[in-house]
Amino acid sequence: TMSSQTPVDVFPAANPHGLRILGQANRLFIVTLDGEDLLLIDQHAAHERVLYERLKTAEKSHEKQLLLVPKNVEIGQNLNKVLLEYTDDLHRLGFEWQDFGGTVLLRAVPLVELKVPAEQFFTAILEELSEAAGVRALAEREDYLLYTLACKTAIKDGDILTMAEMTKLVNDLFALPNYQTCPHGRPIITYLGRDELAKRFKR
Amino acid sequence: TMSSQTPVDVFPAANPHGLRILGQANRLFIVTLDGEDLLLIDQHAAHERVLYERLKTAEKSHEKQLLLVPKNVEIGQNLNKVLLEYTDDLHRLGFEWQDFGGTVLLRAVPLVELKVPAEQFFTAILEELSEAAGVRALAEREDYLLYTLACKTAIKDGDILTMAEMTKLVNDLFALPNYQTCPHGRPIITYLGRDELAKRFKR
Repeated sequence: TMSSQTPVDVFPAANPHGLRILGQANRLFIVTLDGEDLLLIDQHAAHERVLYERLKTAEKSHEKQLLLVPKNVEIGQNLNKVLLEYTDDLHRLGFEWQDFGGTVLLRAVPLVELKVPAEQFFTAILEELSEAAGVRALAEREDYLLYTLACKTAIKDGDILTMAEMTKLVNDLFALPNYQTCPHGRPIITYLGRDELAKRFKR
Repeated sequence: TMSSQTPVDVFPAANPHGLRILGQANRLFIVTLDGEDLLLIDQHAAHERVLYERLKTAEKSHEKQLLLVPKNVEIGQNLNKVLLEYTDDLHRLGFEWQDFGGTVLLRAVPLVELKVPAEQFFTAILEELSEAAGVRALAEREDYLLYTLACKTAIKDGDILTMAEMTKLVNDLFALPNYQTCPHGRPIITYLGRDELAKRFKR
């Protein structure tokens, strides 16, 4: 009968944190089961948190990736000012360059998976920082930089994920103590509890 | 990169009605994707609707299943009164018996998948009907009987379903024109839309 079968052959294996990943919805959420409860995970916010924590670790251990071929990047006078202001922070994160005044020869970038060419990534970070002119306190500035890097490299709303990618992301996220909110405080996960759902069915 | 892959190797195949079944939550809901939207299906209400429609069809075509060995059922005087009152309705549904006054020899039952022995099913139906003493109008009475049969034989809240069972139920349900509500008007399906979910993540 229907009640006596255990669907062991049906569901993906539970990950180390006890969640079963069912799939992706709206190209935005990872749909999981936590026990029998539905748990949704915001893919972008989750990846931001994972990358942010990874960058903090990389910064502490001075991890970076050298470019095989250094890249000439035209950044212009405005972004050159930003570059000078943030030189120490950018070095600490893993960026390395020679400055020719308005043009730089980019030699290394942080140890993150780039979604765009390194020179485009470098410019995007500088542009982002140029909009944070008001941020002066060092701790705040460092945090802003880490967050900007995480945001620029995280998977986006709209990205289609494979089961393998979802599994990796969920495992990475739940290995962190602060898996519940993104670096800016937005929720990463939401439960759809039995009682709430039952109400919709007028049970 | 994450954005360019199509998870064709990941999700169960879509059923004929375009839904992708992801799994079961709370032993109560079938979790599906309708396009990219989350759609939950109440397993008990869905099966009630499917069985109700099947019984209506069976009634019209006089379908029944003969018992290999007729069963003696002690029903007592109260249920015997119910049996006499509902004789025509019960015959039409596929029940057949010889009445010895308080004891019947049960020979046939409707063409439904029984979850309990036939004699126990027969008694349960009579007991249910004895509580509907106020129902007198023929159409209303017939409907009550069909609904009672559907309810008694439907999968329940708490039943664990395999992917095959979920697929069959969803296919059966969405083949019906009235798949949205159970025979008593409760919702069978509920959408969890992108906007509603995004709000929970303060997007």
